[in-house]
Amino acid sequence: MSKQTLQTLKGFRDFLPEEALKRNYVIETITNVFENFGFDPMETPALEYSSVLLGKYGSEAENLMYLFKDRGGRDVGLRYDQTVPTARVVAQYQDIPKPFKRYQIQPVWRAENTQKGRYRELLQCDADIFGDSFAPTADAEILTLFWKIYKQLGIINVKIAVNSRQILKKIINEAFGEDVSEEIFSSIVTSIDKLDKLDFSEVQEELVRKEISEEKITSIFERIKEYQGFNYKDIERIDQNLYVSMKMAIESFGIPEDQLVFTPTLARGLNYYTGIIFESIDPEYKGSLGGGGRYDTLIKQLGGPDITAVGFAIGFDRTLEVADELQLLPRLKTNTKVLVAVKEDAKNIFSKVLNLVTQIRESGISTELYLNPQDKLEKQLKYANKKGIPFVTILGPDELQKNIITLKDMQTGDQEEMSIEELIKKLS
Amino acid sequence: MSKQTLQTLKGFRDFLPEEALKRNYVIETITNVFENFGFDPMETPALEYSSVLLGKYGSEAENLMYLFKDRGGRDVGLRYDQTVPTARVVAQYQDIPKPFKRYQIQPVWRAENTQKGRYRELLQCDADIFGDSFAPTADAEILTLFWKIYKQLGIINVKIAVNSRQILKKIINEAFGEDVSEEIFSSIVTSIDKLDKLDFSEVQEELVRKEISEEKITSIFERIKEYQGFNYKDIERIDQNLYVSMKMAIESFGIPEDQLVFTPTLARGLNYYTGIIFESIDPEYKGSLGGGGRYDTLIKQLGGPDITAVGFAIGFDRTLEVADELQLLPRLKTNTKVLVAVKEDAKNIFSKVLNLVTQIRESGISTELYLNPQDKLEKQLKYANKKGIPFVTILGPDELQKNIITLKDMQTGDQEEMSIEELIKKLS
Repeated sequence: MSKQTLQTLKGFRDFLPEEALKRNYVIETITNVFENFGFDPMETPALEYSSVLLGKYGSEAENLMYLFKDRGGRDVGLRYDQTVPTARVVAQYQDIPKPFKRYQIQPVWRAENTQKGRYRELLQCDADIFGDSFAPTADAEILTLFWKIYKQLGIINVKIAVNSRQILKKIINEAFGEDVSEEIFSSIVTSIDKLDKLDFSEVQEELVRKEISEEKITSIFERIKEYQGFNYKDIERIDQNLYVSMKMAIESFGIPEDQLVFTPTLARGLNYYTGIIFESIDPEYKGSLGGGGRYDTLIKQLGGPDITAVGFAIGFDRTLEVADELQLLPRLKTNTKVLVAVKEDAKNIFSKVLNLVTQIRESGISTELYLNPQDKLEKQLKYANKKGIPFVTILGPDELQKNIITLKDMQTGDQEEMSIEELIKKLS
Repeated sequence: MSKQTLQTLKGFRDFLPEEALKRNYVIETITNVFENFGFDPMETPALEYSSVLLGKYGSEAENLMYLFKDRGGRDVGLRYDQTVPTARVVAQYQDIPKPFKRYQIQPVWRAENTQKGRYRELLQCDADIFGDSFAPTADAEILTLFWKIYKQLGIINVKIAVNSRQILKKIINEAFGEDVSEEIFSSIVTSIDKLDKLDFSEVQEELVRKEISEEKITSIFERIKEYQGFNYKDIERIDQNLYVSMKMAIESFGIPEDQLVFTPTLARGLNYYTGIIFESIDPEYKGSLGGGGRYDTLIKQLGGPDITAVGFAIGFDRTLEVADELQLLPRLKTNTKVLVAVKEDAKNIFSKVLNLVTQIRESGISTELYLNPQDKLEKQLKYANKKGIPFVTILGPDELQKNIITLKDMQTGDQEEMSIEELIKKLS
């Protein structure tokens, strides 16, 4: 190992305990919500055949994939998302009971331009329902699950923007007075999608460059402006399915109405959505924290069976960042609750100290033993401080004789004498 | 995606819910023990510079590594173990407080010969103490942690074989009447290490081929046979450090004496151990479930700082296999506790059903909503059965009027009527 390469690869990160503890907390919270909604875990391997990975995306994505030949000469690559491997799973194990509600929390790898400060190994948290037979309920359930994750993390200001392919289609078809081709639809939607960042005149210019007549552009913009104030009840007359889903999500599942915002321009760039489209946005944070939608034709397109699908991916890093800024995450340097220290004159009673450690641990409290009984107590306390361990127990011959333990609160500096039972109760 | 590649790569595995649930249970159990002992989590990226990965092992291991050039032309590779990336971390962030007690549960990738039925993506669970200043206590603590994991999983018959480099050295030096070279030591130890599978005459043949004199071989074997009956108290006169560690582990930390078995032939193949060496063996299961030891010079050798280290890796798959054979793992097809079904004539009260679902979920119970209220009740029950969901609640207009719910136990077939409060209490 040469000195100059004793470092992490660009775009990759180490997670030291403080960061790893935050991540574990967020993962645990998300997992609990997934399981609370009756979704089961699933995992796929990090490596797949390249031919599996290359099915869904255009060349832009392909350029970001880690593809290589393995030692057997097979063309393989690292997982780029969870949808494609799951399509393979649904095709490979056709006897999985349907609807198949699964969640998946695994890293994906993308050779992003590091100058943008993007990461090349990112954790994705996906939940999807495959093979539902009644779209509006499944859509409402997925919306609710999506919202509930932010709620559970405490990101209570999140807005869920909602739209559907049908509404985008309706807006464009009405302007054209006919059912437009997939090509034209896609091209116009790509521009409309930018209305969250650009203003109408900028998008107009783009559409003019795409040779859309001004008359049609005006019609499209009028319709969008009309729809933009719609609440979920107004949706009934333009998209019955979306209306039913939003109604269920709000009236029965309890999403506050002001958090589920109908957004007629939302398209999320991807053209594989066939129904509902949604995205989470934190008002304080630029950009999306996650999103998803219904993609009833994709699995078949990828070579899998003809099966409906609706779901989402949570952008783990951005969600964690927002939660962290909002001070919603534990700020711990360690998970350890107590350091068991020893008075200098206690070398000879070290076996009693080990007994104490074992007893505290048995009660479920995270306990670190100070390893060297010959170190000065001062050094032991310094160590606890540096590590961020909130409590230290101090044991010496005096304490042992009186059958008590001294407990020091490292934050306040207070010291208290107590029995082992009291100590365990206090730390539990 | 072509049909013939709609499959998992050889040597890689998908984990569908039933298997994923088992794995998560084992991961959670191991994590809890690590944290109970005051170890903190850490993570390193899947990809490292090849030069980092290639520092520790011989060409045999190198042939098993997934190495490739990334899009930037860098020589990179997938994580092969956790020790090497951790050495890099300890070198890269020298201000981490010491001793640094960290655990790491992440996959590693090895292009093993698939004919052996080995996996190419395996989860490793490592715990190590870096920079301890008092070896015997750290060794005892690591031994205890290692043992405690199996105990917590319920693998109570596990034996921890223990030895030390010092004892191996003593046996060989005494036979030679001098301090042998590293080369000779290594060569002889490699043969002795096989005494768990071969008998003395076979190992003798091997040593003769290595041109060790019969006299020396006889002396080595005599010493081994003498030591083989030793209990931890007998170790005192041959390795004071190992004696202190074993004594602490047994007398103070509570490892039963018959589970900590001094094994003078144990070397674990690797020649980087500098002190204690240990391995877990399930008597019913051929081969080791994990192992470790002290490696005080390795981190420096890898380009890191001069820092002591002791720790182990648990072989996750083998440990899971043993625990599964012993029926110690949950046999669940799903984590979902209850399916909320609807009577056919309940379509119009579906919003009440959604309220019920939300209420049960709020109480922390894993709840699946049956998505299509138009399906026959029989079909809904069949679905619960196929998925392995243990309970089904049935709601219809009758129930609603009487303000009760019918709960069906899918295992016994029993049905009971109860209030929502009673239902939540029963399922909690």
